[in-house]
Amino acid sequence: MEKKIKLGIIGAGRIGRLHAENIVKNFVDVEVTSIADIYADSINEWAQDLGIKNVYTDYKNILKDHEIDAVMVCSSTNTHSIISIEAAQAGKHIFCEKPIDLDLSKIQSVLDSVEKAGVKFQVGFNRRFDHNFRTVRKIVEEGKVGDVHIVKVTSRDPQPPSLDYVKVSGGMFLDMTIHDFDMARYLTGSEVVEVYANAAVLVDPAIGEAGDIDTAIITLKFANGAIGVIDNSRKASYGYDQRVEVFGSKGCVTVSNDTPSSAVLSTEDGVYSEKPLYFFLERYKDSFITEMQEFFGSIRNDKQPSVSAIDGLKDAMVALAALKSVKEGRPVKLE
Amino acid sequence: MEKKIKLGIIGAGRIGRLHAENIVKNFVDVEVTSIADIYADSINEWAQDLGIKNVYTDYKNILKDHEIDAVMVCSSTNTHSIISIEAAQAGKHIFCEKPIDLDLSKIQSVLDSVEKAGVKFQVGFNRRFDHNFRTVRKIVEEGKVGDVHIVKVTSRDPQPPSLDYVKVSGGMFLDMTIHDFDMARYLTGSEVVEVYANAAVLVDPAIGEAGDIDTAIITLKFANGAIGVIDNSRKASYGYDQRVEVFGSKGCVTVSNDTPSSAVLSTEDGVYSEKPLYFFLERYKDSFITEMQEFFGSIRNDKQPSVSAIDGLKDAMVALAALKSVKEGRPVKLE
Amino acid sequence: MEKKIKLGIIGAGRIGRLHAENIVKNFVDVEVTSIADIYADSINEWAQDLGIKNVYTDYKNILKDHEIDAVMVCSSTNTHSIISIEAAQAGKHIFCEKPIDLDLSKIQSVLDSVEKAGVKFQVGFNRRFDHNFRTVRKIVEEGKVGDVHIVKVTSRDPQPPSLDYVKVSGGMFLDMTIHDFDMARYLTGSEVVEVYANAAVLVDPAIGEAGDIDTAIITLKFANGAIGVIDNSRKASYGYDQRVEVFGSKGCVTVSNDTPSSAVLSTEDGVYSEKPLYFFLERYKDSFITEMQEFFGSIRNDKQPSVSAIDGLKDAMVALAALKSVKEGRPVKLE
Amino acid sequence: MEKKIKLGIIGAGRIGRLHAENIVKNFVDVEVTSIADIYADSINEWAQDLGIKNVYTDYKNILKDHEIDAVMVCSSTNTHSIISIEAAQAGKHIFCEKPIDLDLSKIQSVLDSVEKAGVKFQVGFNRRFDHNFRTVRKIVEEGKVGDVHIVKVTSRDPQPPSLDYVKVSGGMFLDMTIHDFDMARYLTGSEVVEVYANAAVLVDPAIGEAGDIDTAIITLKFANGAIGVIDNSRKASYGYDQRVEVFGSKGCVTVSNDTPSSAVLSTEDGVYSEKPLYFFLERYKDSFITEMQEFFGSIRNDKQPSVSAIDGLKDAMVALAALKSVKEGRPVKLE
Repeated sequence: MEKKIKLGIIGAGRIGRLHAENIVKNFVDVEVTSIADIYADSINEWAQDLGIKNVYTDYKNILKDHEIDAVMVCSSTNTHSIISIEAAQAGKHIFCEKPIDLDLSKIQSVLDSVEKAGVKFQVGFNRRFDHNFRTVRKIVEEGKVGDVHIVKVTSRDPQPPSLDYVKVSGGMFLDMTIHDFDMARYLTGSEVVEVYANAAVLVDPAIGEAGDIDTAIITLKFANGAIGVIDNSRKASYGYDQRVEVFGSKGCVTVSNDTPSSAVLSTEDGVYSEKPLYFFLERYKDSFITEMQEFFGSIRNDKQPSVSAIDGLKDAMVALAALKSVKEGRPVKLE
Repeated sequence: MEKKIKLGIIGAGRIGRLHAENIVKNFVDVEVTSIADIYADSINEWAQDLGIKNVYTDYKNILKDHEIDAVMVCSSTNTHSIISIEAAQAGKHIFCEKPIDLDLSKIQSVLDSVEKAGVKFQVGFNRRFDHNFRTVRKIVEEGKVGDVHIVKVTSRDPQPPSLDYVKVSGGMFLDMTIHDFDMARYLTGSEVVEVYANAAVLVDPAIGEAGDIDTAIITLKFANGAIGVIDNSRKASYGYDQRVEVFGSKGCVTVSNDTPSSAVLSTEDGVYSEKPLYFFLERYKDSFITEMQEFFGSIRNDKQPSVSAIDGLKDAMVALAALKSVKEGRPVKLE
Repeated sequence: MEKKIKLGIIGAGRIGRLHAENIVKNFVDVEVTSIADIYADSINEWAQDLGIKNVYTDYKNILKDHEIDAVMVCSSTNTHSIISIEAAQAGKHIFCEKPIDLDLSKIQSVLDSVEKAGVKFQVGFNRRFDHNFRTVRKIVEEGKVGDVHIVKVTSRDPQPPSLDYVKVSGGMFLDMTIHDFDMARYLTGSEVVEVYANAAVLVDPAIGEAGDIDTAIITLKFANGAIGVIDNSRKASYGYDQRVEVFGSKGCVTVSNDTPSSAVLSTEDGVYSEKPLYFFLERYKDSFITEMQEFFGSIRNDKQPSVSAIDGLKDAMVALAALKSVKEGRPVKLE
Repeated sequence: MEKKIKLGIIGAGRIGRLHAENIVKNFVDVEVTSIADIYADSINEWAQDLGIKNVYTDYKNILKDHEIDAVMVCSSTNTHSIISIEAAQAGKHIFCEKPIDLDLSKIQSVLDSVEKAGVKFQVGFNRRFDHNFRTVRKIVEEGKVGDVHIVKVTSRDPQPPSLDYVKVSGGMFLDMTIHDFDMARYLTGSEVVEVYANAAVLVDPAIGEAGDIDTAIITLKFANGAIGVIDNSRKASYGYDQRVEVFGSKGCVTVSNDTPSSAVLSTEDGVYSEKPLYFFLERYKDSFITEMQEFFGSIRNDKQPSVSAIDGLKDAMVALAALKSVKEGRPVKLE
């Protein structure tokens, strides 16, 4: 066997622990040697069970460890860019959770540092690695729908986040819709050139009072002439609704929600089937593993990951333009 | 049996003949006594086979026939309003094909004449009577989706009309999307207060040269706070695509396309099912009969048809606002 | 127009009246001149509204009317064979409701009389004309599933018939499953050579006490080597369940139930869709018209109807073999 | 953490290696310490990468290792019963792949040995742990379909096995249908009391020449009065077809095939969706892990596994009765 990739994970919240477990179970050629979290004490036993040797409070211990090849940045959003920059300077390959930052100039700094250091950088747009959406993209790439005319993304959460989270999230567009902007760009293979957002507070007035919105329809124009639409809600009573559709000159491809089983029960009262898989941890379970294959593969084979810092930057630009569109009540062009 | 309703049909093009045949076959209590068409000669045999006694070149013969209770206005669009006004003045109940007119003031004149004459007036938004959309509306009315947050209409034709037709059609919004505006108003039970249209020429440059568009995404704001989106194409390679979705605080209801059969063929090459029913004559076959039940029922029971001249006016207002939105590149409020 | 076919209808029960109305509304080249029913008084007004001139108590008035070209035998089952024989002798083309008789020798007599008289004879296996099953047959005929290996028919009623009816029905196999035997023969294009029936009384003990069964799985062997299975229940709580599947060397084709609409409602409680169309009048509505097209077309074009007295005979033979299989607890070969 | 369960795996063919990898990746509280295979040399590197310490040629080394708590019997079918008996005598808990044996008396000996030794014994009917079938069973157990009237199992392989395998497999019923017999017993929660099998050679004459069959419809009677049907083919051109249906007094539950994605492509040529997941390794991937949870859970919690040697015995009895039914051309009762 080749030499193992040595990995350090920064941030052991829900997503950090998920990545750690996925990697330990699924990648025999990768070794998670270290993990850092400000609440290091609370993860000691968990880390030991997983066979992770070092548990630190300070992530800098990971950056200065010369044995470590790559890091996962899974800390809170406001630390993504600074840790990424430091990791690049330390010569580590970087997997960074989305969004890279809420500020475009900071994302640009990450991009610059990564380029300068010549390290790999992948951003956590895991949905690109989902079995349904990858298949849609493949069908589009193969020309089976012809020239793309219309792309549609439906993305609704089962529950709004806590108000505390809403306040620091950067708003629905940067927190939630950013995945959909990325999806629209991924599926069309084209850049967004104009955005118009029709947003509302229909789920919970407290979200509005916190300065955010919870329901939106966002229309897009793409560089290749296609047009698109995303519809969002922070609360779909029936669960996590994740569908896309690409319509073109030769056809149309759609994907529907995944469910726990295909059981259909017919009774006197009607015909019942299952609700979608509950939320992103269930729905995108496999994609979190597949995106790691991409990351480790790009390190092993010295090639750029298919979803990079530039994507993080572009998606954030679209999100900020959508925000501006709501504020000014008009379509906004991207430079 | 009660006295039969005596009916005159004005215009024996495709839709006029369809109505005539539907009525003769399905309404034993209605008698189509007369039909008028500028090419009267060409329909004589057909009319005779159907048992229609009088065939006229001049529709005024129908209006002055005292035996006739009601008329169907199925002539070319530019004559709808004037004939409707004359018919109202002659005391006939009126079923008028959509659109009533391309000019709001003329629609208003029809509305005024109808009100003054105290006759029934129904406009041909047949899709309101479709089995799928009626079921969606019923589910919404029963509160099963809760407060409406998002309404979505997908409406794509299998083939663009001829360029000659495009030139006199009033444009895609008044010719085609007007059905979707009506559907959105019907499903939400609320009026449109703002429109933003994202339109393109992606199907055929000749349509653009003729001053029209062939692809669009139109976002809507409703008086009740809901938001909506319509997506249109003049050419879906797989056929007539007619779907809607209503999402609200308690749930979401969708309908999919009707197909000639439910056959699913699985082979080495994949799993195949049928394309949608080809076009509106096949897809909305039954709705053309059901809308007549509404019309004749409203005459018999002396009540207003559920879809009236006011709907024709409101839908046209939305269509004209959408047109303005495209021209000015901004959302347009309705007064 | 060609000379109209003059038709007499014998029996004005539910199915007789259904045929009369379908023909009057849909066949301008057919005239229903007469109808006979032992309760003639009760149908006078209905017949007049439909424009049927003659209403008789005695069906022989129809048989001796020289103007009449064809008759529909819609009377009670025990009169089908004798009226058919008399009609053939009177030189009338015959459409006879199923089953022709419960006694094979009487069916044979009908066959003989029809052949001798040289008239057309069609039996009312309307399901062959259903949009779903026709499509399946077409796919099989086109060779898209290759050689047929397995045919499956699911056929379940929403409600058992009355016990009074059960007692005179000839039993579930001759009354209900006979349609499925015909379907299996139609879909495979091959004759049944052996039957094994696994039957039970699971719906209502009273049906068992009346000497009948209400639930069954019947396996079939066909002349072409294919094997098949039918499953029946007299009571599916969710409604009329009518599905088929044909599996062969190259693929598999299935059809599912038709529903009133394609509406799907997703809520916190689950995802609901509509139950099947209630019963045969709703589900097979169009097939009752299409089978008439076949009948009148075969008269006009002087060709044999695609479903003839021989089919009625063969289907009854399979039903009787199934009955014998249950009684003797073993597979029964057909001669 | 509790003391780890120490496990030895006997047989490192496809299924043995699959179990080993699943356990290493997914069960932190289980340690695969040893593996035995007659071709031990060929698995050394693979075992080392997985962290398995001991690789033996002779499985007896595992049985005499006092540290080992449990064994997986994944060797060739003809060795299952003898190794299981020896393992029981050695006091090991046993997971044994299906079928336990082709000979009922040998299965009975396993049962006796297991009982005498007081060890846990689970047989590898992994499909009971599949997400779809578990959901069906749960719905049935909750009484949502009422009393079970009809159970249906469709089970078709994408490709027949090699002729060499066919010859030693014990025949299709013991090799393939045994899973379906187990499924039918599992779903109904009742024992089979009578079997009638309608079998044919339609896929490949060479299978017939080897003394086996490749296509079958098997009808079942259950102790609780329900009836059932299984249909099998050794070759479905479109892939692995695994569906079930349970119909009862209150309703009907069905499950359909799992596919790689939910993508639906509509083009001028039709509407295409994906074929089922290819074969059992893909389709039942998760069930191989879930059945291990059951096994290790039953060891940890000292309770019987839900699928035991008795199930292996009963399923084999049904399979042998089906074989007898084909030979004798009649239904066969089980004692």
